[in-house]
Amino acid sequence: MTVFNNVPTINFEGAASANDFSFKHYDKDATVMGKSMDEWLRFSVAYWHTHTFGGEDPFGGPTMERSYQKYNGMDLAKARVEANFELLNKLGITRFAFHDIDIAPEGNSLKETYQNIDTITAMLKDNMKEHGIGLLWNTANMFMDRRFMHGAATTNNADVYAYAAAKVKKQLEVAKELGAQNYVFWGGREGYETLLNTDMKREMDNLARFYHMAVDYAKEIGFEGQMLIEPKPREPMKHQYDFDVATAYAFLQKYDLDSHFKMNIESNHATLAGHTFEHELRYAREMGILGSVDANQGDLLLGWDTDEFPTDIYDATLAMYEILKNDGLGTGGLNFDAKVRRPSHKPEDLFHAHIAGMDTFAYGLKAASQLIEDRVFENIVEERYSSFDKGVGSDILAGKTSFKELEAYALELQEPIEHQSGKQELIKAKLNQYILNANNTVKV
Amino acid sequence: MTVFNNVPTINFEGAASANDFSFKHYDKDATVMGKSMDEWLRFSVAYWHTHTFGGEDPFGGPTMERSYQKYNGMDLAKARVEANFELLNKLGITRFAFHDIDIAPEGNSLKETYQNIDTITAMLKDNMKEHGIGLLWNTANMFMDRRFMHGAATTNNADVYAYAAAKVKKQLEVAKELGAQNYVFWGGREGYETLLNTDMKREMDNLARFYHMAVDYAKEIGFEGQMLIEPKPREPMKHQYDFDVATAYAFLQKYDLDSHFKMNIESNHATLAGHTFEHELRYAREMGILGSVDANQGDLLLGWDTDEFPTDIYDATLAMYEILKNDGLGTGGLNFDAKVRRPSHKPEDLFHAHIAGMDTFAYGLKAASQLIEDRVFENIVEERYSSFDKGVGSDILAGKTSFKELEAYALELQEPIEHQSGKQELIKAKLNQYILNANNTVKV
Amino acid sequence: MTVFNNVPTINFEGAASANDFSFKHYDKDATVMGKSMDEWLRFSVAYWHTHTFGGEDPFGGPTMERSYQKYNGMDLAKARVEANFELLNKLGITRFAFHDIDIAPEGNSLKETYQNIDTITAMLKDNMKEHGIGLLWNTANMFMDRRFMHGAATTNNADVYAYAAAKVKKQLEVAKELGAQNYVFWGGREGYETLLNTDMKREMDNLARFYHMAVDYAKEIGFEGQMLIEPKPREPMKHQYDFDVATAYAFLQKYDLDSHFKMNIESNHATLAGHTFEHELRYAREMGILGSVDANQGDLLLGWDTDEFPTDIYDATLAMYEILKNDGLGTGGLNFDAKVRRPSHKPEDLFHAHIAGMDTFAYGLKAASQLIEDRVFENIVEERYSSFDKGVGSDILAGKTSFKELEAYALELQEPIEHQSGKQELIKAKLNQYILNANNTVKV
Amino acid sequence: MTVFNNVPTINFEGAASANDFSFKHYDKDATVMGKSMDEWLRFSVAYWHTHTFGGEDPFGGPTMERSYQKYNGMDLAKARVEANFELLNKLGITRFAFHDIDIAPEGNSLKETYQNIDTITAMLKDNMKEHGIGLLWNTANMFMDRRFMHGAATTNNADVYAYAAAKVKKQLEVAKELGAQNYVFWGGREGYETLLNTDMKREMDNLARFYHMAVDYAKEIGFEGQMLIEPKPREPMKHQYDFDVATAYAFLQKYDLDSHFKMNIESNHATLAGHTFEHELRYAREMGILGSVDANQGDLLLGWDTDEFPTDIYDATLAMYEILKNDGLGTGGLNFDAKVRRPSHKPEDLFHAHIAGMDTFAYGLKAASQLIEDRVFENIVEERYSSFDKGVGSDILAGKTSFKELEAYALELQEPIEHQSGKQELIKAKLNQYILNANNTVKV
Ligand SMILES: [Co+2]
Ligand SMILES: [Co+2]
Ligand SMILES: [Co+2]
Ligand SMILES: [Co+2]
Ligand SMILES: [Co+2]
Ligand SMILES: [Co+2]
Ligand SMILES: [Co+2]
Ligand SMILES: [Co+2]
Repeated sequence: MTVFNNVPTINFEGAASANDFSFKHYDKDATVMGKSMDEWLRFSVAYWHTHTFGGEDPFGGPTMERSYQKYNGMDLAKARVEANFELLNKLGITRFAFHDIDIAPEGNSLKETYQNIDTITAMLKDNMKEHGIGLLWNTANMFMDRRFMHGAATTNNADVYAYAAAKVKKQLEVAKELGAQNYVFWGGREGYETLLNTDMKREMDNLARFYHMAVDYAKEIGFEGQMLIEPKPREPMKHQYDFDVATAYAFLQKYDLDSHFKMNIESNHATLAGHTFEHELRYAREMGILGSVDANQGDLLLGWDTDEFPTDIYDATLAMYEILKNDGLGTGGLNFDAKVRRPSHKPEDLFHAHIAGMDTFAYGLKAASQLIEDRVFENIVEERYSSFDKGVGSDILAGKTSFKELEAYALELQEPIEHQSGKQELIKAKLNQYILNANNTVKV
Repeated sequence: MTVFNNVPTINFEGAASANDFSFKHYDKDATVMGKSMDEWLRFSVAYWHTHTFGGEDPFGGPTMERSYQKYNGMDLAKARVEANFELLNKLGITRFAFHDIDIAPEGNSLKETYQNIDTITAMLKDNMKEHGIGLLWNTANMFMDRRFMHGAATTNNADVYAYAAAKVKKQLEVAKELGAQNYVFWGGREGYETLLNTDMKREMDNLARFYHMAVDYAKEIGFEGQMLIEPKPREPMKHQYDFDVATAYAFLQKYDLDSHFKMNIESNHATLAGHTFEHELRYAREMGILGSVDANQGDLLLGWDTDEFPTDIYDATLAMYEILKNDGLGTGGLNFDAKVRRPSHKPEDLFHAHIAGMDTFAYGLKAASQLIEDRVFENIVEERYSSFDKGVGSDILAGKTSFKELEAYALELQEPIEHQSGKQELIKAKLNQYILNANNTVKV
Repeated sequence: MTVFNNVPTINFEGAASANDFSFKHYDKDATVMGKSMDEWLRFSVAYWHTHTFGGEDPFGGPTMERSYQKYNGMDLAKARVEANFELLNKLGITRFAFHDIDIAPEGNSLKETYQNIDTITAMLKDNMKEHGIGLLWNTANMFMDRRFMHGAATTNNADVYAYAAAKVKKQLEVAKELGAQNYVFWGGREGYETLLNTDMKREMDNLARFYHMAVDYAKEIGFEGQMLIEPKPREPMKHQYDFDVATAYAFLQKYDLDSHFKMNIESNHATLAGHTFEHELRYAREMGILGSVDANQGDLLLGWDTDEFPTDIYDATLAMYEILKNDGLGTGGLNFDAKVRRPSHKPEDLFHAHIAGMDTFAYGLKAASQLIEDRVFENIVEERYSSFDKGVGSDILAGKTSFKELEAYALELQEPIEHQSGKQELIKAKLNQYILNANNTVKV
Repeated sequence: MTVFNNVPTINFEGAASANDFSFKHYDKDATVMGKSMDEWLRFSVAYWHTHTFGGEDPFGGPTMERSYQKYNGMDLAKARVEANFELLNKLGITRFAFHDIDIAPEGNSLKETYQNIDTITAMLKDNMKEHGIGLLWNTANMFMDRRFMHGAATTNNADVYAYAAAKVKKQLEVAKELGAQNYVFWGGREGYETLLNTDMKREMDNLARFYHMAVDYAKEIGFEGQMLIEPKPREPMKHQYDFDVATAYAFLQKYDLDSHFKMNIESNHATLAGHTFEHELRYAREMGILGSVDANQGDLLLGWDTDEFPTDIYDATLAMYEILKNDGLGTGGLNFDAKVRRPSHKPEDLFHAHIAGMDTFAYGLKAASQLIEDRVFENIVEERYSSFDKGVGSDILAGKTSFKELEAYALELQEPIEHQSGKQELIKAKLNQYILNANNTVKV
């Protein structure tokens, strides 16, 4: 069976290609700053949006046309596995990511659920081996089912807490089995609907206990993938405890978890929290906790998580700049946590969407690499902070001053103090120049 | 005296130029779709941001370095006139716009204020003639002075209403004298701080009376420029009566003013109202009230009017698409209602900023013209709505159906109804392709 | 069968009652400003949220416990009818509202859908007669089904347009049959996902044609209820054409529909559009188009429609102030377009929620009536605008002035012009005093 | 000289008083939960908004009428000192707070600035002693002056860093001299305008160095007041490093500063960051870093810091609930970091505003104390989390479980797991009941 039989294998054809089923910029093996595009970008397909999303929104039912919709239960699960590898192969993507319930339906008992997972895990393993595909990360969905209505690791219901632990335990085992490079926690219900009925401290303590048990169990079974937290400020909850990268970092430090966890940063979650995508990447990079990326795009005029496929060249360029400065994402990747729009209901829209996202980030990689090779921002920053390279500035950096010494210095200063311009307008023009010329001058 | 003696005349040097003081894309006389870039773009300098803005923000005092800061009063006003024409000439911009108090200081009485205005108006007229410069629009500032604390045309204070009328009368005369192509109303204080002390109906009625008097007086003195309303949803007021284009259009229709006014659409005001820039342009275009544009850019993560110089190529492309579909802006133009950032305090930053804005819109013009020449969106729309070209669809468009006939038709329909995909992802990829290739005019 | 057998009939017990199943403020027949609370408040239950909502959110499945969940199809529909009247009776509410698919499931054909609707309509009619219940309004759901993925009256698909017409035709007939006092249009899919594939003008024209056909058909069958448009700015669409009251009013005027339609104003939609609830009510009142109210509450820190039951006393007081100044809602009412929170999944939560909403608005009615009886805002406004009661002010109001006369007057003004204080802080303190004392009807 | 000679001393007159110049709820010495209202509320006047704010906004000049406007320089500074103590005395407030430049103008040199500060500090000290007034906190304004255009402790300019150090050193000395109970850092310019020219890591490192030097110097001079950071997400900067309480806490932990600093939480800053006021208070309380409060109120429909006087009873009640649960604010207080609206320009508006704020928080104190005395939320929480009081729940809390044990337990669970309702609607109704009845049942 092929699910996407109208869709050919997608090849690189260059910027001017009129073929909708081709890459304009993503040339998998082309070299950029010493590595292939594939090595820098490490694309991953999100099983949930690509294979299980039906097109629903809060005011509408499913719209998607998929040939496997005739199946149910485990038959449907198996058909989706085939669809997954067909899509990966046609796109030339070699990583994917999933929640437990994306790959296998819940059974009538937790035990039966485990059996379903085991069956599909074995099938995935075979296919991964056959097609040379890796698992970027997996996770347990602890937000969709009714049982998690009050949270999972932060629930008020001890039984649910135990159930959540079982689910994560199982997925850590699956991670080990499939050689996952990371394990992700997104706490969709770990927060509150209203503070009025919530013991926030107890919930945060319990969440920390949960993470420590996860770390312990991973160690016990020899799973060495990176643990990741994916921050999001709200939706579905009014407030989620992992509001943004900084909030999650405060939590990790408070509960002695900072050596075990890094961040999975989603662009749309960044903007919902009031930050740019590049801000969250920069902060995580500077704190040494940049783990992986959910590469999607929100709509800043909308107040919810739209999870659009990324097409904004600015965002992609600035994101790839941070990733290049981080010397890549390590075991992380660019996972398209993105769904086609509800009226983009044809199977081929999945391909148009991934192509759009991959070309956008490939282009961003090209533009960012040229910015770095020409030291555009590096020179600006070096010049801008040059007063710290000498005299009182270097004493400050060296930690050799005190308020008394600085005051003595300040009292002798000639006013008004001379300032450089911040030059934001010129810098933005330069950024445009690099972005608009990247197509031409790239040396790939 | 030259104010910008470090800055050369700005010339077009092409996309690869490394000269910060050159245009990369704006080639004034280059032809696009049958007109010159200058004719399509009709750039204008905003006197207030460029010549009178000191760099203040709500938490900080002035920062700007300008050689004329040594002057005061009318001497300062005269120095700014010189600066204005020097900057216009160096940038090759032939239009500008001002508020009354931008060009001349208030005197100790309204009469003295009139005299100051007359003096500078004469000086402007001479310079305009000498340098071949036109006035895109002028307006009366009825928001800055203490006397307008409760509004101008919507004030609770009849004396203030009369004072406002005098100011607009004077500026209509100045508009006539200087050959202004438009006259703009931005109602910075025409709204409310709190509904609790506000008679909204009375204030809207008074505003309508004010506009009718303005129309009458313009006719009386033979001023034939276009009257424009500039919508903004809030700031400084909690609510402004001209919230967005649709709200202003409701008002104009309600008060029989719709034949006299068009819209001056500011990008940053659009986004503050929850709309994209292109939405406001489209709506105005479709309603026949697209007059002029304040070409700037906001920051969608910030909740106030940042009035940044426009550098976003997407916005510029989609804006120029609407403007091209409108067959240009008529007597309107692209007025840079934009200010350099507070730390961009050097005189040359003004040039970097305008160059960035001009190149951005020139590039947008190129990309939009190629989209139109290739009928990219036109073909999508034509195909997408093709069911209205025949049968029941064409009857609907012709107004020849009723609910009864449509029901009869619907009862015979085969379900499920077939749908085209909305193809948003593919369309966005195509938009990227046009934008990234516009530099080369690569034909895809 | 009783669905809510743990819940007693709810009676008024006064502000200090410790009984969770009692009204603290809503005393149905108590007289306020010459009418009963019931006559002013005209509460209505929203069938969809109260009887068909399962607790789903974009990240979670159903949670609600309802005894009729064991049924399916028409059996479920019938069980919900019983639940509806039981709930109405226990709450003492005598109005409700529904969409077509709330009351009856779609069949395998439009014809079968009609039959289902007819069966339930007959059952509703019997129950309404038996229990003395009226229908505030009904409507056709034209957003949930896949067929409306591209819109209904603004679709690109002429077949869908016809189908939508059939649905509205049917509901107008149901409205006539059940004596509905209003008919509502909420255009959940009447807008766009992206302007890039949208012919906005064509869609708006088609929407206007649709409304005209609806008006014509209502006249034809003798349905005399009020036609209402319910504005909402976005969600599910990126942009809805009925963004807010002013935008809808611009549309109605443009297309000669303003004499046929009023507004159904939802609090949560107001705030999503950037307005206060009272702003939308005030604007509609002043323009003569205040029709009915969807009485709910949003969370201003969340960017989506939370549809919470209203509990904010400030909002309720200021809303009731507008409604009292409008001399009531006429044929409209306060419809609880509100859903219990997802974790409030017990049947009795439905009662707690309605009690909370009813008490909140009853309290708001008390506070607002006292504010009006004491002319608190009226005196403030009268004093504040008193300069328009005489001299130049009264000439302005009478339309007897011109810019020339006003200028002559302004040239003689003594500066600085004297201003009254806006007194916002004092007014808010007074509002608090009225709200906090309303319980006691303390006269201050 | 008296500045407020039209204003009498404000006394408590009870909820029904019609005297605008009286307290309705704030009864200074009345006992609530074992302490006086004054001891719980610890009100403080903000020198800047009350005595130096002229009514300016980004689109308007000053409006305020103050008798001391005839003065300049140090004469003006001295007149404001008198105004300060007159206002404090008439309001019965015994604390205030200031920035250095609020109390004394800058001189022509830093040395002269110091002299100005010393002169006024002596005058303040005398007045404080005479009138029994304390200093809640002071701080250095490092955002208004041009020299801080690129930041203070995070500037790119080492000279400015030294200057900032000198300013803070001086204010720590003033704090010591006047017996300030806290010292506050609000980093108005400590952030970035654009990441493109910013070395975020270097700036954060420098900020940490600055704080360590401040701690060292305070120790050196024996200043034992509490150091406080006041978070704010943005404005004037695009991003401030102390975005919210959690972000500041991450920073403090990262740089080993968490034992030296607590938080000064401003309501309007909380909401700008996407949080409720009570969220920020709760988080800080639970982390042990709740220091002091800037008691004001924002407008959630506006995207900037409106700094309104607080009048929302809900906010005040929930804030006072957190403060009572914290056993008060320790050395902190409720500082009215709030300004009268621009059109509230009369001197008496300052009194109406403070009265409104004080009564609002006094009422909130009453309502919150009753909620606590009746254990309303405590009982809800105790019941809600009761599954953690026994069995697997208590093992989890005790840290005695592992994923293996929890899985074993989960495998035996009977599905579906039983859930309590979250009861948000009932809880909100109860909150309303307490708030609306607090006036009557208070036992003060
Ligand atoms: Co994600
Ligand atoms: Co997302
Ligand atoms: Co503008
Ligand atoms: Co603007
Ligand atoms: Co509604
Ligand atoms: Co709603
Ligand atoms: Co503050
Ligand atoms: Co503030």
